Amino acid sequence: MTTGGFTLPGEAGHEELTLRLAERWGADVIRDSDGTTLSREILDADYGIYSTICLIREDRDWALANQRLLQQNFLGSFPVVADGDVVRIDPLAGYSTDQFVLNDWDGVELWQVFDRTSGTEVPRESWRLVDGTVVVDGTVPGHSYTVNVLVMRVWEEISMYNHVTNDWGDKPRLMALEPRHPAVAQRLEEWLERWCVEHPETTVVRFTSLFYNFAWFWGSDPDLPHVYADWGSYDFTVNPVALREFNAGRAVPITSEDFVDAGRYTSTHNPPSPIYREWMEFTMDFVLALGRRLVDVVHRHGKQAYVFYDDSWVGLEPYSPRFPEFGFDGLIKAVFSGYEARLNAGVDVPVHELRLHPYLFPVDLEGKPTFVPGGDPTADARAYWTVMRRALLRARIDRIGLGGYLSLVEPFEDFQAYVAEVADEHRLVRDLHLAGPPAVAPVRVGVATCWGRLRSWTCSGHLHENPELSLLHVIESLAGLPFDVEFLALDDLAADGVPDGIDVLVNAGPAGSSWSGGPVWSRPELVAAVTRFVAAGGGLVGVESPSALDRAQAPGRLDRFQLAPVLGVDVDAGDRHVLARRRFDVDEAGPAARSILAGVDVATALAGVRPQPGTRLARSGVAVLAATDGVPTVTATSFGAGRAVYLADHRHGADAARLLSNALWWAAGREPSGYATSDPRLDVAHFPASGTVLVASSADVPVTGSVLRDGEVVAEVSLAPAGLAVLDAAALDG
Amino acid sequence: MTTGGFTLPGEAGHEELTLRLAERWGADVIRDSDGTTLSREILDADYGIYSTICLIREDRDWALANQRLLQQNFLGSFPVVADGDVVRIDPLAGYSTDQFVLNDWDGVELWQVFDRTSGTEVPRESWRLVDGTVVVDGTVPGHSYTVNVLVMRVWEEISMYNHVTNDWGDKPRLMALEPRHPAVAQRLEEWLERWCVEHPETTVVRFTSLFYNFAWFWGSDPDLPHVYADWGSYDFTVNPVALREFNAGRAVPITSEDFVDAGRYTSTHNPPSPIYREWMEFTMDFVLALGRRLVDVVHRHGKQAYVFYDDSWVGLEPYSPRFPEFGFDGLIKAVFSGYEARLNAGVDVPVHELRLHPYLFPVDLEGKPTFVPGGDPTADARAYWTVMRRALLRARIDRIGLGGYLSLVEPFEDFQAYVAEVADEHRLVRDLHLAGPPAVAPVRVGVATCWGRLRSWTCSGHLHENPELSLLHVIESLAGLPFDVEFLALDDLAADGVPDGIDVLVNAGPAGSSWSGGPVWSRPELVAAVTRFVAAGGGLVGVESPSALDRAQAPGRLDRFQLAPVLGVDVDAGDRHVLARRRFDVDEAGPAARSILAGVDVATALAGVRPQPGTRLARSGVAVLAATDGVPTVTATSFGAGRAVYLADHRHGADAARLLSNALWWAAGREPSGYATSDPRLDVAHFPASGTVLVASSADVPVTGSVLRDGEVVAEVSLAPAGLAVLDAAALDG
Repeated sequence: MTTGGFTLPGEAGHEELTLRLAERWGADVIRDSDGTTLSREILDADYGIYSTICLIREDRDWALANQRLLQQNFLGSFPVVADGDVVRIDPLAGYSTDQFVLNDWDGVELWQVFDRTSGTEVPRESWRLVDGTVVVDGTVPGHSYTVNVLVMRVWEEISMYNHVTNDWGDKPRLMALEPRHPAVAQRLEEWLERWCVEHPETTVVRFTSLFYNFAWFWGSDPDLPHVYADWGSYDFTVNPVALREFNAGRAVPITSEDFVDAGRYTSTHNPPSPIYREWMEFTMDFVLALGRRLVDVVHRHGKQAYVFYDDSWVGLEPYSPRFPEFGFDGLIKAVFSGYEARLNAGVDVPVHELRLHPYLFPVDLEGKPTFVPGGDPTADARAYWTVMRRALLRARIDRIGLGGYLSLVEPFEDFQAYVAEVADEHRLVRDLHLAGPPAVAPVRVGVATCWGRLRSWTCSGHLHENPELSLLHVIESLAGLPFDVEFLALDDLAADGVPDGIDVLVNAGPAGSSWSGGPVWSRPELVAAVTRFVAAGGGLVGVESPSALDRAQAPGRLDRFQLAPVLGVDVDAGDRHVLARRRFDVDEAGPAARSILAGVDVATALAGVRPQPGTRLARSGVAVLAATDGVPTVTATSFGAGRAVYLADHRHGADAARLLSNALWWAAGREPSGYATSDPRLDVAHFPASGTVLVASSADVPVTGSVLRDGEVVAEVSLAPAGLAVLDAAALDG
Repeated sequence: MTTGGFTLPGEAGHEELTLRLAERWGADVIRDSDGTTLSREILDADYGIYSTICLIREDRDWALANQRLLQQNFLGSFPVVADGDVVRIDPLAGYSTDQFVLNDWDGVELWQVFDRTSGTEVPRESWRLVDGTVVVDGTVPGHSYTVNVLVMRVWEEISMYNHVTNDWGDKPRLMALEPRHPAVAQRLEEWLERWCVEHPETTVVRFTSLFYNFAWFWGSDPDLPHVYADWGSYDFTVNPVALREFNAGRAVPITSEDFVDAGRYTSTHNPPSPIYREWMEFTMDFVLALGRRLVDVVHRHGKQAYVFYDDSWVGLEPYSPRFPEFGFDGLIKAVFSGYEARLNAGVDVPVHELRLHPYLFPVDLEGKPTFVPGGDPTADARAYWTVMRRALLRARIDRIGLGGYLSLVEPFEDFQAYVAEVADEHRLVRDLHLAGPPAVAPVRVGVATCWGRLRSWTCSGHLHENPELSLLHVIESLAGLPFDVEFLALDDLAADGVPDGIDVLVNAGPAGSSWSGGPVWSRPELVAAVTRFVAAGGGLVGVESPSALDRAQAPGRLDRFQLAPVLGVDVDAGDRHVLARRRFDVDEAGPAARSILAGVDVATALAGVRPQPGTRLARSGVAVLAATDGVPTVTATSFGAGRAVYLADHRHGADAARLLSNALWWAAGREPSGYATSDPRLDVAHFPASGTVLVASSADVPVTGSVLRDGEVVAEVSLAPAGLAVLDAAALDG
């Protein structure tokens, strides 16, 4: 057993358990959690101490006394259909008035009324605000009208969620302050200063993010309790102070509609407008400036500052090039999936820590039992760990930890034992990384989206929240594969071409989304850049709707997939209804099929895949490697000196990940080299500096399989469910 | 047994059979068919004689000698991706050179070259024609280029199809002449004149349509044998003579791209452009002028002129207001579905005749045996007849008939007997119509599309060719329901509102199609007109993607269905990915459900229905009557004084037709009145003038059910499979 790199949630009143498990799990740090405190005995036990603070909502009394300093946002009303020449709109109808209060004293000049039938703004002189109701004159019967208004948020959303979900009755409702007000910024700084003085034993201040929550609009209709939510949206950074500062001196000001966007708001899934990108930069600059002051306070008190990438991370942007300027000493992330571990590991910060699941709560997020009779927390922990460990083989994570009520684990001896095992495994893998990085495949992958590097290793939110998003499954597969992965912005590709060093470009996601790209594909220089890249020998893997444009966005174009000439595949969006489809045979035995389907159980790999019903083959040279109901699901084609693979969809799993891996090797025009395994459920990583080869099983059954090097079998391994084998590379050479 | 109203295909060499069946089936007319002739004995047997001619391709020798007078069209080449600054395009690469020959001697100034990556035309000075190859200079590497060219068609497509399908070897290839050339028009007229002289016994010249085939482009790639086909497209009416005449004096000329449309061509399924509509009118005027001259020739010879609505019907347009000016004495239509019978019945022409199926051929269109061992032509005939008879209950068809080789029926005594039965049934129903029209429901239905009246009772082609087209299923259901149906143009609704007398508006079809409407829904006046219509008490039934616009076509709009405020339902095209869905319960017992689901086996009615995965409920007042996999498939809502029903899809069948019927009654705000049946497989029609009620079964099993009047049971009937009951209305009163 080794020690260190483990953060244990302590619990006052359970000192003996806390200290016993701290030793058993090799913990070097004890933390508090939501709802728990640390007692003097724990604080004095010579462990590092993390203290959690959520600065923006900590000081409820002051917030209550300064309600005009709370956070705001734009809200688009629900539409009202005119039945005469006057329409009255209650802006908050349909929204939770526990969350929102109309701000009718500051910034009404920023409101906008729209005729949503014509899509045009109603002139300011045609509407007025009367006792909280917007009265629109000169309306056209049959047209729908909405108003975008500024609202105060009088209940912080996480507090609201916990309160409502747990039926907390009259427990106080927390409020989030708007730090753009200088009085608030000063108050936060002073509060933190005092807090540091009062908590000398804390070694690490664990900021539960910083200022701005992700967007989450609650509804009043019991059938529509949540109107809008997005983990990466900056909707909650809006307020008159910020708007006026942003617009000062601008020829074209930012408007309410730049945020409301006809009810789409600034969802991360949609391509961002140029002005919204500027707003994000503007907000990041502010969050950085104030955030750095707060980190300085912590540092002045001789403590470290870690930040938890969580609810209020907006503006923080760990993948912004300026993130290191915050001076954070560590980044902590709660993780369900491997890609979230890669997100954390890839950030430029000294310490990377994961908060593992299960959370030490009686039930999980979906209400299923965990640490109560009927729960099996050990099985849960094993499932989460095997998902996570794939990613940890590829990238260094310095620390892991748990959260919640430690006392709940007392009756679960097997859980206690399993966590000890996990902690040891983690330290083993971490130490290998520290000795020298694992070997990577000689195929560098560029995932191209509208967001590029800023949204590396994420598509906004957890996999279980976006189960249908193909790109999220792609990055989850990539998280455990031995390829170097870069996240590229489509705008940059259009401007500068595909960067040197990229071997295979990936474009994936629904048509029109920020992930596949949307309207950026109407830029001929982007299409030409990718086409030339492949023609010159590059690889392309397109998933779902790569390079897709709507017909109205692509006048004069032949295809919906702008890369159809390269992919050999297109989709008919209905406007080519009568075009006869190209016939095809499924080619399971040709050279491309032998490479791409190698070692893959195709039925398993494609389980759950939804083929695009309008798929048509744009070129006769394309080989269909798999099809469902007569619709191609996997195709491969050569184009110039390069190659392209199309996957109608991708649902992560061992076989699907192997299929993707094969596709990347094939598209790169390379034979797989380095270490590999015969069974897709076995992941392998080679740490040359340590002379160690790790083989990890993601299966919940025993697996026996071969380890291969450059295509030759060098060992056979038999792993227990979720097992890990540590092999000596030198012995394999023998 | 009655006689008349029946056209029998005679066959020389089988005179006894011909005359025996003519008597058995009550025929009054004998016709020739493709491949058969009538002998002197038949011609002299005192029957009316139909003679089939397909004028445009009859005179092969003259066509062969005048190949510059053949028909032409624009063809868009397949794209070529530039790998340097010059691109060479073989315009016909990928197309059948048996069908197409490049016209490089007349009209090259009408060709256009396009950069399909930017969607822009390449200036004329940047390309040249060199030995049949188009050489484009100054190309951008990675961009795709195409050329639109004029081609001659050296093989008429129906001849081509029969030839290729039946392996006819060196049997002559027929060619279609272009009647825009005055020499051709004169030749056709002279040829017909001579033909009439030489065929004194012919009483009816049966024009197998007139001049222009529907568009059908053959490919050279065995995997893409048909590149494009559309039954209603005017692509084959194009040639330099017509183009120059059309463009003379026009500020903005029509171009090749107005026809090619980036490879979409002028498919009937896509919304027509204004200039293409003008081209259609221009062509109709020409077809009418020359067609009338030909009809006059026939009339001068004391014969009648019937026209067969078939392969070469383009420009004929039976639903054009000018169609009666042709002077045709009858319209014949080959029919697979009830809606095709309604299409025929609704045309303003003296005689309406149907060519029933099966065709007297050894095998059917799909190659399945018919009049050979293994075939069951009687079962086929019964199935077709029950489909057709639903429509015949509602609208008068004067004549029916068969086509093909009569000798083939000789061994099939049961078929001979069944046709006698069908002929009698038809005469019975026809005579009831002649005595006075059947009662119609007091709910007038308006089906609104881009095409309006011009494409009444069709969506271009047969149901088996467009099995996924929801509107086609809707009109097939409507064909046998007792509602008056009008086909309305969405442009007209925008200009003039919903016409008086319409009770329920139907809008149905895929998003962006000419059927649901496409971009016309960006016109606020259209949305307002329909919204006001429903608010004032009208009904709306939306199917699949009613009033749908793409996001790029609807800036500033809240919804994809522009009528979402009325329907209470919208679809998320992906750009509202994170919006929480409105929760709903399926309400199978509320008032709307009781009316709309009454008497319907919902599972059967919705079998095969594909719910729209992105369906969201736009209003909380909407009732979900049925859902599949959590996605609403049938909803109902009240809006103002009116009502709206949404059906995610519609697949015709007895229960689905009943569901649609119920939806129309409910949307109209009326209780069903008049005659009805308890079992959706029983259709009922009341002929007040005759005092007769017909009950027809569309089932292939015996059915017992009730006949109702104004909701009260007035009789019980038991029908054999496909049976017909004739009831005395007076007795039902008793």
